[in-house]
Amino acid sequence: MTADSTRSEKKPLPKADQACPLSRFKCVCAYDGTDFCGWQSQPNGMSIQDFIEKRLAQIFKRKIRIHGSGRTDSGVHADAQVFHFDACWKHSADTLLSALKCGYPDSLQILSVRRVPQTFHARYSAKGKRYSYKIREGHSAPKSTRYEWSIGRRKLDVKAMNSAAKLMLGTHDFTAFSANRGGGAKENPVKTLFELEAKRSGSLVKITTRGSGYMYKMVRMIVGALVEIGLGKLSEGDIEDMLSAKARCSGKFQAAPAKGLTLEKVYYSIRH
Amino acid sequence: MTADSTRSEKKPLPKADQACPLSRFKCVCAYDGTDFCGWQSQPNGMSIQDFIEKRLAQIFKRKIRIHGSGRTDSGVHADAQVFHFDACWKHSADTLLSALKCGYPDSLQILSVRRVPQTFHARYSAKGKRYSYKIREGHSAPKSTRYEWSIGRRKLDVKAMNSAAKLMLGTHDFTAFSANRGGGAKENPVKTLFELEAKRSGSLVKITTRGSGYMYKMVRMIVGALVEIGLGKLSEGDIEDMLSAKARCSGKFQAAPAKGLTLEKVYYSIRH
Repeated sequence: MTADSTRSEKKPLPKADQACPLSRFKCVCAYDGTDFCGWQSQPNGMSIQDFIEKRLAQIFKRKIRIHGSGRTDSGVHADAQVFHFDACWKHSADTLLSALKCGYPDSLQILSVRRVPQTFHARYSAKGKRYSYKIREGHSAPKSTRYEWSIGRRKLDVKAMNSAAKLMLGTHDFTAFSANRGGGAKENPVKTLFELEAKRSGSLVKITTRGSGYMYKMVRMIVGALVEIGLGKLSEGDIEDMLSAKARCSGKFQAAPAKGLTLEKVYYSIRH
Repeated sequence: MTADSTRSEKKPLPKADQACPLSRFKCVCAYDGTDFCGWQSQPNGMSIQDFIEKRLAQIFKRKIRIHGSGRTDSGVHADAQVFHFDACWKHSADTLLSALKCGYPDSLQILSVRRVPQTFHARYSAKGKRYSYKIREGHSAPKSTRYEWSIGRRKLDVKAMNSAAKLMLGTHDFTAFSANRGGGAKENPVKTLFELEAKRSGSLVKITTRGSGYMYKMVRMIVGALVEIGLGKLSEGDIEDMLSAKARCSGKFQAAPAKGLTLEKVYYSIRH
């Protein structure tokens, strides 16, 4: 996968004026995470952040750092990831969008660019996020295999999954449903889930969750636990025990694979 | 893209018995054509036929030639492509399916294997085929970009497209809607279309066609012409002229890109 650099080079760029006042821009982008090395900048330059920053450097003739609402792992998709950056740009945000949306592989798309107050921060202003996760009983069709976790011949008890999911709603210490990212400051493990529901449509089971925030791998850990519930290998009592233990319990369940996960929406206050 | 050869090597294969009588097997497979070099065998071994024949050679310890219902170009997808082959196999067809479905990239899947009479031929017994083609007004979302033709800001007049499509229904010489494959015998250009319809769903326009057979690139040429109709650049009169000309008319329209096209079904008589 390589960016279509010829496309971007052909298009004349509006001039970035270094003398104009600094503006903050809120951007929304979508991606198929399959071919990227996750959101966060990587030495090989193959992360989503790398592709966008490379394009910004072409436009502004200098390094511009972008700040995402959070990282997504390699293979995780986004319908509407949010990021912000500061830049001197005296033209309209729409003109910037036209410049910024070119020069990527088809699997990355910039959807919108908007000027926002300096008080806006893609990560710290976020009120919550919605994710969906797709699980396929049987084999995924070739066109869906990048977007679903295929669990083979096993069948899920969706009713049991939803009963267990209700126990996780509300505010809890979700340490049992997180993984160690390694490095960095310890994150507050207390999060609030407003929605956590599994819905069946034929052989597809889709889990949707809306929450105040998520720790590293938390959605995939929750999905992994709910699948074990659906297979009858974990009970509601196990979920209650894990929530009250407030500690990681290795071996009871695994994080669901990245490819089934999509970041659908990041919520901000009405001001942003 | 590489086949997951470890998966196939781990699985012990039922023994192929060369002494048992020859059976003909009808197989159905699905693929995301993006990463393959089309259906037909290629020197680089990256066609769908190559992957399947490689797996058959592992099972039967000799070269087995497969015969598809027709070729699909690089980038064209299939929900249910049909092929057949002859082999000596004394076990059930289900056992053969279990062996045959392993060892491919996720983008290729064998759906079924069935013993059929020797009179069956995947290509010559076919009574017709159904294809669909997806056109997106605006930009395709990253997850759909492999499966849609994005026509940017242009809008399609679907009513006009369907009026023109009606002119193509029935039996015609479709030479004007075919491309030169180069080499090989000239195919009969007279084909019958039973269905050709465009349906809008939001910004997606899906064209479905069911016909007795199609020449090289014929579906994509028909879609290309219908899009020109939808954009007001060709008229119904142009379609009538091209059908009666029975000759290629270069420059009036182009074949639609491969990636929007999916072979949905191959029809056979009730005996097969």
